[in-house]
Amino acid sequence: MDTTLLIDEVRLTPILIADPPLLNTQGVHQPYTPRLVVEVVTRGGVTGVGETYGDSAYLALAPPLAAALRGRPVSDVNGLFALADEVCGDSRAAGERAAGARVDAGGLRGVQTSDKLRLSVVSGFEVACLDALGKTLGLPVHALLGGKVRDRVEYSAYLFYRWAAHPDGGERDDWGAALDPAGVVAQARRFARAYGFSSFKLKGGVFPPDQEIAAVRALAEAFPGRPLRLDPNGAWSVETSLYVAEQLKDVLEYLEDPASGTGPMAAVAAGTDVPLATNMCVTTLAEIPEAFARDAVQVVLSDHHYWGGLHRTRELAGICRTFGVGLSMHSNTHLGISLAAMTHVAATVPNLDYACDSHYPWQSEDVITTRHVFEDGHLTVRDAPGLGVELDRDRLAALHRRWLDDDGTMRERDDAAAMRKAEPGWATPPIPRW
Amino acid sequence: MDTTLLIDEVRLTPILIADPPLLNTQGVHQPYTPRLVVEVVTRGGVTGVGETYGDSAYLALAPPLAAALRGRPVSDVNGLFALADEVCGDSRAAGERAAGARVDAGGLRGVQTSDKLRLSVVSGFEVACLDALGKTLGLPVHALLGGKVRDRVEYSAYLFYRWAAHPDGGERDDWGAALDPAGVVAQARRFARAYGFSSFKLKGGVFPPDQEIAAVRALAEAFPGRPLRLDPNGAWSVETSLYVAEQLKDVLEYLEDPASGTGPMAAVAAGTDVPLATNMCVTTLAEIPEAFARDAVQVVLSDHHYWGGLHRTRELAGICRTFGVGLSMHSNTHLGISLAAMTHVAATVPNLDYACDSHYPWQSEDVITTRHVFEDGHLTVRDAPGLGVELDRDRLAALHRRWLDDDGTMRERDDAAAMRKAEPGWATPPIPRW
Repeated sequence: MDTTLLIDEVRLTPILIADPPLLNTQGVHQPYTPRLVVEVVTRGGVTGVGETYGDSAYLALAPPLAAALRGRPVSDVNGLFALADEVCGDSRAAGERAAGARVDAGGLRGVQTSDKLRLSVVSGFEVACLDALGKTLGLPVHALLGGKVRDRVEYSAYLFYRWAAHPDGGERDDWGAALDPAGVVAQARRFARAYGFSSFKLKGGVFPPDQEIAAVRALAEAFPGRPLRLDPNGAWSVETSLYVAEQLKDVLEYLEDPASGTGPMAAVAAGTDVPLATNMCVTTLAEIPEAFARDAVQVVLSDHHYWGGLHRTRELAGICRTFGVGLSMHSNTHLGISLAAMTHVAATVPNLDYACDSHYPWQSEDVITTRHVFEDGHLTVRDAPGLGVELDRDRLAALHRRWLDDDGTMRERDDAAAMRKAEPGWATPPIPRW
Repeated sequence: MDTTLLIDEVRLTPILIADPPLLNTQGVHQPYTPRLVVEVVTRGGVTGVGETYGDSAYLALAPPLAAALRGRPVSDVNGLFALADEVCGDSRAAGERAAGARVDAGGLRGVQTSDKLRLSVVSGFEVACLDALGKTLGLPVHALLGGKVRDRVEYSAYLFYRWAAHPDGGERDDWGAALDPAGVVAQARRFARAYGFSSFKLKGGVFPPDQEIAAVRALAEAFPGRPLRLDPNGAWSVETSLYVAEQLKDVLEYLEDPASGTGPMAAVAAGTDVPLATNMCVTTLAEIPEAFARDAVQVVLSDHHYWGGLHRTRELAGICRTFGVGLSMHSNTHLGISLAAMTHVAATVPNLDYACDSHYPWQSEDVITTRHVFEDGHLTVRDAPGLGVELDRDRLAALHRRWLDDDGTMRERDDAAAMRKAEPGWATPPIPRW
């Protein structure tokens, strides 16, 4: 095999990126959230980039995998899983210790396990390897996955209840507060105007269900006929979930993770015709058989970080297609590297059944030289070699400097801790909250 | 994208290849069997090769797909499915007409549908595209699938009851007849000696079950502790299947397609601890949900021809891994191109749970310059660009000449017709036969 494909060096750069004060059922986004940028450099001098979560549990797992990659071809991404199993043993334990009480990482990423932590780390390396391979061969990442079946990927507006500003500093933006139906509709109008999104998801679980029902009703009036979604991150009981589904059945495209766990989700699904989507109930292959057998979810929102990369995401798509379960994609706080990766893989699967989520418009900072631009709610699939993005080293250095300078409070994403800055007595609400 | 990757020409060459008088429940292999060799030539002057079934139903579907491929990049294999749906409409109907009464193609390829015919044709094109892509990039096909996770792929000896020679000509070999336990053991010994195979599959459904039980018992005595398999191609009733399973439960690695259909297979599975394997009950994604839900099969024997190529085979592997179902690979009369393709894809899936079938030792003829050689029952995964095989154009021309010269009797595989040469009153036996 061509020795220029062999990995010469792997660079790991933890960074902190600005995040607005977006509310969810656990609390509020911190002013800064940690990410890990992975660079894989080949003997041929090509650098591939990937990104993943940057909390300390992930940072503990990455260095041994980085060391083990040296001398292996960037084309060997199937081998990353066994390699991670092999080399992350000790540091996996370290990662779990580091994760400690917050192994649930804010409670928003589904059940957190050591396997899932490891897969999320692998995903950053896999994407970096595919980027390097594509750049070496002169092929876009989608071509390395068998080729795109669409030229554009549709995204949905991701609406949040939010404050105008963080209570304790952080970057400011001009979006203002959105704490009621009028505020949500105003936010949606700006999203539609700026990016052309034609479907809308509201992050719920923040206010009592009737208030969120009113917000979705207001969206339905403002955007008649447009697909709407509501996602309380599992905050509701089965009864509340069924109540909301009944109230909104005429306008919801799907209801996302209304309740927590396969049993409650199955109970909700059995009581409504509104499809249930998830990025919490089904986040690993191991969770699929029971969830599908019980018809607990009708749409899986894949996330290539959770599932271990782009090849595994394609396997998930095959599984969903086979079992007649819908597929779309989840997104949370991430940079343009991961948005490029998800756009590439989304372009290759025939059964992309719904517009993908994108948290990206909320991210004012990035580490790529040219930001992604949504047009008519779509991203055009890039045909440049690799992911088609270029690292902005000055920005990367600045965001890493922020991570180095942090006193430790921002290095773990903790939405409850951030909420306590405004409400000192705040504790993570019990599930179900309502 | 690099224009050298665009397809300039597609060549389709139907051939007839020699096949020994191997017996199965439908009859006997004909002296010659049809195959279709697909060549994809890029603007860069690189030729990729693939092969698939060559019966007229397949030949009818291939030309419109070949025509539609011109000008498309060889990297675009995900797009082949929609393209085939689009362009094979009319000729699909033609293919079904051509298939006519024998759309079941000998009854040995599972339920035959137009979708499956189309997928088998697509598989030949997909492999040819991947071969051309790999040759262009200087990468082996396994690297285009994410990289190998093993350097060697294990195969199993494929034992057949057989006659010494065809009743009406055809090529001769020196294997002699095998019609009783002693003949089967002698055949197995020669396979073990020549190729180092350490597991053994007997094609059954030929003689009453007690005779086949005796043959497997004789194998178990001759090769103590070695994995053994028996495959009657669905010829047995549930009761007979359970009887055979009970008689052989201490020596069988698995029982392959003892009964026909998901219901009977599920009934057999419920009554024995011997795992059931299949390449008849589950041959398409559509058949998976019911079969898995009813636990009708414990091992899927994939065949990249049935499933639509190497990417789809990897999806199948992901599904089996997710649902805890075993995976191995099926093989019937094919050439070294398909053996190379299956070895590449087998090398990339982590969950290759059993040694693969290989019919290849029975094929005295090939269209590649250097035949595959089994060592210790394994094939070494080739790291040369593409599939790592080279077309022998003289041999291809000679085998095509045989196809042209045929009076039509060999252009469709028909094991019952072949049997009638020896037994004029032979009719395809009813299922279950015993």
